[in-house]
Amino acid sequence: MRKQISNVAQASLSEHNRSCVLRHLYNNGISSRAQIAKALGLTPAAITKITARLLEAGVIEETGDIEGSKNRRSIGLKLDSDRFHIIGVKFARSLVEIGVFDLNGTTLHLEDLPEVSDSTIDSTLTTIHERIEDLLSGDSSIVAIGMAVPGPYLRNAGHTAVVSSMQSWRRVNFLEEFSTAFSVPVFVEQDARAGVLAQYLFADHDDCDTMAYYLVGEGVGLGVLDHGKLINGSLGAATEIGHVSIDINGRPCDCGNVGCLERYCSAVAIHQEINQSNIIPQSEAMGHSQACIALFAKAAQGDAQAQGMVRAIGRIIGYGCVTIVNAFNPERIILGDIVPQAGEPLMQAVRDIIHERVIDELASTTSVEVSKLPTDAAVSGAAAVAITEFLDRPSMFFDVT
Amino acid sequence: MRKQISNVAQASLSEHNRSCVLRHLYNNGISSRAQIAKALGLTPAAITKITARLLEAGVIEETGDIEGSKNRRSIGLKLDSDRFHIIGVKFARSLVEIGVFDLNGTTLHLEDLPEVSDSTIDSTLTTIHERIEDLLSGDSSIVAIGMAVPGPYLRNAGHTAVVSSMQSWRRVNFLEEFSTAFSVPVFVEQDARAGVLAQYLFADHDDCDTMAYYLVGEGVGLGVLDHGKLINGSLGAATEIGHVSIDINGRPCDCGNVGCLERYCSAVAIHQEINQSNIIPQSEAMGHSQACIALFAKAAQGDAQAQGMVRAIGRIIGYGCVTIVNAFNPERIILGDIVPQAGEPLMQAVRDIIHERVIDELASTTSVEVSKLPTDAAVSGAAAVAITEFLDRPSMFFDVT
Repeated sequence: MRKQISNVAQASLSEHNRSCVLRHLYNNGISSRAQIAKALGLTPAAITKITARLLEAGVIEETGDIEGSKNRRSIGLKLDSDRFHIIGVKFARSLVEIGVFDLNGTTLHLEDLPEVSDSTIDSTLTTIHERIEDLLSGDSSIVAIGMAVPGPYLRNAGHTAVVSSMQSWRRVNFLEEFSTAFSVPVFVEQDARAGVLAQYLFADHDDCDTMAYYLVGEGVGLGVLDHGKLINGSLGAATEIGHVSIDINGRPCDCGNVGCLERYCSAVAIHQEINQSNIIPQSEAMGHSQACIALFAKAAQGDAQAQGMVRAIGRIIGYGCVTIVNAFNPERIILGDIVPQAGEPLMQAVRDIIHERVIDELASTTSVEVSKLPTDAAVSGAAAVAITEFLDRPSMFFDVT
Repeated sequence: MRKQISNVAQASLSEHNRSCVLRHLYNNGISSRAQIAKALGLTPAAITKITARLLEAGVIEETGDIEGSKNRRSIGLKLDSDRFHIIGVKFARSLVEIGVFDLNGTTLHLEDLPEVSDSTIDSTLTTIHERIEDLLSGDSSIVAIGMAVPGPYLRNAGHTAVVSSMQSWRRVNFLEEFSTAFSVPVFVEQDARAGVLAQYLFADHDDCDTMAYYLVGEGVGLGVLDHGKLINGSLGAATEIGHVSIDINGRPCDCGNVGCLERYCSAVAIHQEINQSNIIPQSEAMGHSQACIALFAKAAQGDAQAQGMVRAIGRIIGYGCVTIVNAFNPERIILGDIVPQAGEPLMQAVRDIIHERVIDELASTTSVEVSKLPTDAAVSGAAAVAITEFLDRPSMFFDVT
């Protein structure tokens, strides 16, 4: 069933048509050929031809009769999301998580590797190879691997740039390390872009296809879908909101820029402020995430200083949202990762800034919310990267041409 | 030949396939059916079917035999860019320009309407209707009208928002005013997005399809193509770089935001600085554009103060470029309109800031240049909006389904 990757040419029109059929079945469940033809605006003959190849290759299958229009019975087609499994690998500063998911993002398996430090990078890479090989040999339904790494990630070159919080990973070329290492294709993407793909595929956002996933964790990242398409940029390095300046005379950043948003509202920056304010005992010994969570807990208990700090963080995140609205005009901004866990007081400050600084027509038509996906969304996001490729370029996975 | 617009459904897959054939002929000139099939990855049978309908509807035509592969002769197909004409209308603060163009953006006719003021808006609208009717009745090759207006333009709602420099236009709903007024379809777009479409269609940028047009004139605007697709946002209000803040504690803007880029480097902002510095005699009586050009001339003559001001303006424009790179990662940033006319000294300051503040991998792979399109690019940009629709949705113009 698995197809070895060869030189993949640019997706052709026939691939695009095929992909639209697959996406229709993925989004709408069991459908007849006539329903697909009507929805996509292709002739029934064209749909019959495309689905014949997909059936033959085993990507989709026929179900029994379904109710058609005018009470006519017709044969249903379906893409069984349970039949294909995807490995997702999430790289963070000191953590690597590996999961196996079905096409709907349901978690079938999840594991954390031992904590990573600069000195254990090589053994971690070896472990990743071994664990993936084990998973592949134990589950023949696995058709692809997706990986999510912190940005700025130069997707076409295969490595991360800057990322002060993850120095040790910078010397790894993810494409060289993994792209041809396994019997199934591997796709690597920046983590917040992976996140927006997960929101699009797995979360319930009605028919919204223009949305931003705003990751505020150890780093600050952004992924944007514009009418269903990921905004990529020339080298796959677009939507790096963490390095957009909010103050051209502000704090210097390792990226060379000044006043980068990340320098004000990442968990790393918040941890520094916590240490300076002495608000959390022994915060210096804590991890970034742990220190932030302690601050949010103190604010929730009614501590005025902690509440003030949370509101100030919310305003900074809000300035980021103002830039996101002006730059990308998404219908929804979905916040995720560590910092939005501060909850409603923080979100209120975010919304206040948006209503203060964005023109009314846009402020009132942009929803801002915290991700509702389970906490392993980052790993399922890695899988979403590969699932998106599966739906967009089926010929990479199956002999359907 | 013209087709009345009815309710236009979302572009179907068959429309997309048809559009790809048209774009192939637009970009590559005379091609055989076999060449098109090969380039697009569709079967020869499918191409024959699509081109038959386009031929029947009169969109494309057959030429004589052309040389095929293996010395076989085959019939050529072409989209004659001269056969279809497009009206472009450019709205600026006090100026309305109307032009007629062929599909390559060649100017066939160009006129300026009398200067507009708040009190003459209504008569200007009347004149626009009359002039367009005259042009339509005198040239049956005209198939569409494109209009370019200053942003932020809420494309789906049909009106501009904010735009301190163009108050009088804010009460005009461009869609209500024009969309069904004529026998051909009308398309309205923000001016910098129109500009990037003109760069893509009319200028020679090799095969670059990921580019930003950065308009620095009375307003500051941006249009971005990401892999050939305009970044739109939910309401068609994305890429509003003029209202992205470069300083969250900076100058207040009419849009509600603080530190908007436009408040520092638009011709309006520069004119204010010129007035305050007393560097140009009687600058207060000048128009914004005139005052800027006088400053640039003085800098070119070697005046140190003027040169310092030009460099400072270049640095601000450069901060905008840094944000554009981090937000959109275009392969090219093309500057246009009044302010880039300051030339090389300004561009050098822009490039210096990019190299100082953008990570090396992106700074070295992003070209920054001044638009090489003729000065009427803004009006041809308006036409480019309509030409893009013509190529993307031929069924709006012809009965090809």
